[in-house]
Amino acid sequence: MANSKFEYVRAFERPDPLLPNTFIVIRLDGRSFHSFSARHAFTKPNDIRALHLMNAAAAAVVRDLPDIAIAYGVSDEFSFVLRRETTLFERREAKLVTTVCSSFTSWYVFLWPQFFPETPLVPPLPSFDGRAVCYPALGNVRDYLSWRQADCHINNLYNTTFWALVQQGGMTTQEAEEELKGTFAKDKNEILFSRFKINYNNEPEFFKKGSVIFRDYTDVLPSAAAPDSSSPAAAAATAEAQETATTAVPREKSKTQIEKEKKRAKKAQVVVEHVDIIQDAFWEKRPWILGDR
Amino acid sequence: MANSKFEYVRAFERPDPLLPNTFIVIRLDGRSFHSFSARHAFTKPNDIRALHLMNAAAAAVVRDLPDIAIAYGVSDEFSFVLRRETTLFERREAKLVTTVCSSFTSWYVFLWPQFFPETPLVPPLPSFDGRAVCYPALGNVRDYLSWRQADCHINNLYNTTFWALVQQGGMTTQEAEEELKGTFAKDKNEILFSRFKINYNNEPEFFKKGSVIFRDYTDVLPSAAAPDSSSPAAAAATAEAQETATTAVPREKSKTQIEKEKKRAKKAQVVVEHVDIIQDAFWEKRPWILGDR
Amino acid sequence: MANSKFEYVRAFERPDPLLPNTFIVIRLDGRSFHSFSARHAFTKPNDIRALHLMNAAAAAVVRDLPDIAIAYGVSDEFSFVLRRETTLFERREAKLVTTVCSSFTSWYVFLWPQFFPETPLVPPLPSFDGRAVCYPALGNVRDYLSWRQADCHINNLYNTTFWALVQQGGMTTQEAEEELKGTFAKDKNEILFSRFKINYNNEPEFFKKGSVIFRDYTDVLPSAAAPDSSSPAAAAATAEAQETATTAVPREKSKTQIEKEKKRAKKAQVVVEHVDIIQDAFWEKRPWILGDR
Amino acid sequence: MANSKFEYVRAFERPDPLLPNTFIVIRLDGRSFHSFSARHAFTKPNDIRALHLMNAAAAAVVRDLPDIAIAYGVSDEFSFVLRRETTLFERREAKLVTTVCSSFTSWYVFLWPQFFPETPLVPPLPSFDGRAVCYPALGNVRDYLSWRQADCHINNLYNTTFWALVQQGGMTTQEAEEELKGTFAKDKNEILFSRFKINYNNEPEFFKKGSVIFRDYTDVLPSAAAPDSSSPAAAAATAEAQETATTAVPREKSKTQIEKEKKRAKKAQVVVEHVDIIQDAFWEKRPWILGDR
Repeated sequence: MANSKFEYVRAFERPDPLLPNTFIVIRLDGRSFHSFSARHAFTKPNDIRALHLMNAAAAAVVRDLPDIAIAYGVSDEFSFVLRRETTLFERREAKLVTTVCSSFTSWYVFLWPQFFPETPLVPPLPSFDGRAVCYPALGNVRDYLSWRQADCHINNLYNTTFWALVQQGGMTTQEAEEELKGTFAKDKNEILFSRFKINYNNEPEFFKKGSVIFRDYTDVLPSAAAPDSSSPAAAAATAEAQETATTAVPREKSKTQIEKEKKRAKKAQVVVEHVDIIQDAFWEKRPWILGDR
Repeated sequence: MANSKFEYVRAFERPDPLLPNTFIVIRLDGRSFHSFSARHAFTKPNDIRALHLMNAAAAAVVRDLPDIAIAYGVSDEFSFVLRRETTLFERREAKLVTTVCSSFTSWYVFLWPQFFPETPLVPPLPSFDGRAVCYPALGNVRDYLSWRQADCHINNLYNTTFWALVQQGGMTTQEAEEELKGTFAKDKNEILFSRFKINYNNEPEFFKKGSVIFRDYTDVLPSAAAPDSSSPAAAAATAEAQETATTAVPREKSKTQIEKEKKRAKKAQVVVEHVDIIQDAFWEKRPWILGDR
Repeated sequence: MANSKFEYVRAFERPDPLLPNTFIVIRLDGRSFHSFSARHAFTKPNDIRALHLMNAAAAAVVRDLPDIAIAYGVSDEFSFVLRRETTLFERREAKLVTTVCSSFTSWYVFLWPQFFPETPLVPPLPSFDGRAVCYPALGNVRDYLSWRQADCHINNLYNTTFWALVQQGGMTTQEAEEELKGTFAKDKNEILFSRFKINYNNEPEFFKKGSVIFRDYTDVLPSAAAPDSSSPAAAAATAEAQETATTAVPREKSKTQIEKEKKRAKKAQVVVEHVDIIQDAFWEKRPWILGDR
Repeated sequence: MANSKFEYVRAFERPDPLLPNTFIVIRLDGRSFHSFSARHAFTKPNDIRALHLMNAAAAAVVRDLPDIAIAYGVSDEFSFVLRRETTLFERREAKLVTTVCSSFTSWYVFLWPQFFPETPLVPPLPSFDGRAVCYPALGNVRDYLSWRQADCHINNLYNTTFWALVQQGGMTTQEAEEELKGTFAKDKNEILFSRFKINYNNEPEFFKKGSVIFRDYTDVLPSAAAPDSSSPAAAAATAEAQETATTAVPREKSKTQIEKEKKRAKKAQVVVEHVDIIQDAFWEKRPWILGDR
């Protein structure tokens, strides 16, 4: 269609491609969730309905965008890791981060009534800000996920102790805050156990570990040891091998290969688990997620 | 709280402040709205419910963020213009664009049942991508808005003619497309009038002009001619005067001033109009929006 | 010519266009000039040969790149201001900043023997780092230049007093530093006058004001009051008018116009002056530099 | 020292840190070297003096900045590769690229008389533009260098044939261009051999391979097989191992380690070689340059 003389303003748009061959992490954070959760009477320290809602929204986003290799969520935040070879939206930063952010928000509001059937949403509505960060090496992105899961533990231990002091110990929130100032992990464990008979180790994995979302290919792949050469596992291994190889010229995939992978991705179930992703075990068992070396 | 050794990964986050003293435009676009609108049986060429829903979501965002000076919407897109002096979120690009985008999406899904009481949302859910663009001069941001409104006109004339050929003329969509290939505005006007007795000028302003959303200070300000020195109009005038002055050292506002402005902003109604914003008249009447020079 | 399979690595280059319609300032700073100036026995507090060399190198850069509207230098730094409408190197940041930086360095080393005939260059050689900054409004770029000139004054007053204490007052550099700690401008003026009979106001303008380099059109333009419509003054006025106009659609220049301007630019002499650029007088007299409003 | 009210303009400077843990390549290109080389009567197709001058300038830059792992030059361009763990200038893009660019230019002009004793520099002076590009994986940066060396070969074969046609074959430059249009490598080899008895394989490695500059640790390291744990080789191995390890938390080096490495770097000679860097042999022999896997 015809254009107007005003179209020159498009030249002010800045290109924003993210560096190729890096893992792209998109992290969303709830905006003003402190007051939002209070207004909607979230259970403290963890509201299981709210966490399930976060996971359901995130899983929908993962299902929608096959280039997301894994997602990790805790509290009101969620991180989505895109494969290093992704060319989704030509890796344009704003497009990627807003699409994930908007899509997640859409699901969050849409699914709200399923998880909070008795609690209608009351404005100000929930919203999420987001950012994209690139990680050049496998170790870096593993460390990113470890950082978030370590944070989950630190925060959950604190919150569990804090709310025990308030809800069972009869303290005001200010008193509880004062009580915990300067304490270490073992102090908090001690408070929980001696005063409230709570063994932190027995707390639900859901709260201690957060939520890990990924495509489970274990049923799809005949064998982890000898994956078909066009399988996701093989693709991941290839990608990683390229990272350290003496050349990294991207290999073109045949249309048949791409089709095969798409079919497999559709068959694969998107699962939510509450497991350790700091140690190697999780990753060694699932080499297709980020690669096996 | 304590940090883990993994926290070094934060160093990979890139700072993204937008250039100070520029107008920031955040434009949202519906993702895959062609199929979304088909799936939800939108009326063609314009679905009044869908447009009202877009406007309601946008108005909620404008109400929420007083730094938005004006918003302009057409079809499945909306542009939000932030004042050039805004320091919202320290002008961080990702934070600004994702907050507006997520907030808009949240309202869109939340309000859906009000505007489509008979049409439940069916996944894939609606979502919006977004981008931020900086405009250094008043003329540039006026031209940006003119560009969008000129586009609205061009598209609406096309769509009105196209759907007349299909719905009233019995053409297939392909035949209609063929018919309109290479035609100019006057040709389309002619087709509409001679074949369907439609005078395009009499089409609703809503469709021809799109939607303009802003705070209406006309009731709040005692007189446009002599605004109080701490009024938004005066503030805007000051900002603009600085643009061409021999110095542009930012002036600190007193707390009283800031409080006064906040009160006025709350009193001011957020209005939705379907008017020309290409010509000067709209702007001269409302100097507080972008400034009066 | 043929390409290799390795050429995919070009995709890692990031586009870096600077925002259109902003003034681009490129500032160069001498690297390790403290030791460089000591090694080459620069006179303290100001070495007139070194300053003339800086100016000669900067003037050569200005002559080479007509899109530079004005340059300002002090000590071992120089700022070059490009017109807001420049499209030099498509406004690519790295290309602009490295070209100015490399070109300046080239002239500095090449001209060294003319200004330091008795002092051969001894490695480590002089070099300069650079950066580009965009300024959206005339007031901002005027303030930038005012900032540098105010800094020049502050530093020169300090250095003049410091070296008087050392060279004429017999203090060690450490004692002089101690003596000046916490002093205000009037204190330093007082020290200079009471102890060394130096009236700071009588110090050379060269040292107090730094160096301003620009094309002098006063001989070229028949009259400042009524400039020909294709003159640089008119062009500048146009550019500035656009800044505040209700539209800023860039006007295409005819080839004749461009040729005329080029001829005028060649005729115009590049001059070096040591004058105040904080007040309006300088700018009002030379409307062609940055525009007259 | 005191600041002025104008200092707010610093807020317009944008931070520009390059992504951590990526190889940084800085490539310089001669500006208008076609006319520069003609004006200074460079020998065609290769002027050995000009190439030696480029190498001398580059070697000086490499000596000056120990974070440069390797440099590669051909014709009027030079690429400098910084180690992926470098924190030089906090990895600020403009600072890095201008420092390398200015420093190189400075040496080029300074050393000119040594390499062109009979040919004084005549303005316009030589200058170089520059850019920085990040490469996330070892394979990518190897491919970058392979790209440049493959280009060197392609261009040198073309130029050798072109100038043989002109200088020995009596063609005009236009006729030679016409003659070579659409030819492949084997065609050019054939032209060289059948018409001019030139076996391209016997052309100097200098011209066919370009120039590779690096620190030679072979004399410094007692044994490549068992490097001391604080040796550069070990450091490189560590860096690379981290790339694929399950964690990449940066290890702090002790001061003793850093001192040791500095001493070794000083002892190590900066060498210029004309060898193949596309195959693995070069790299396997020198694991300290980019790492050994």
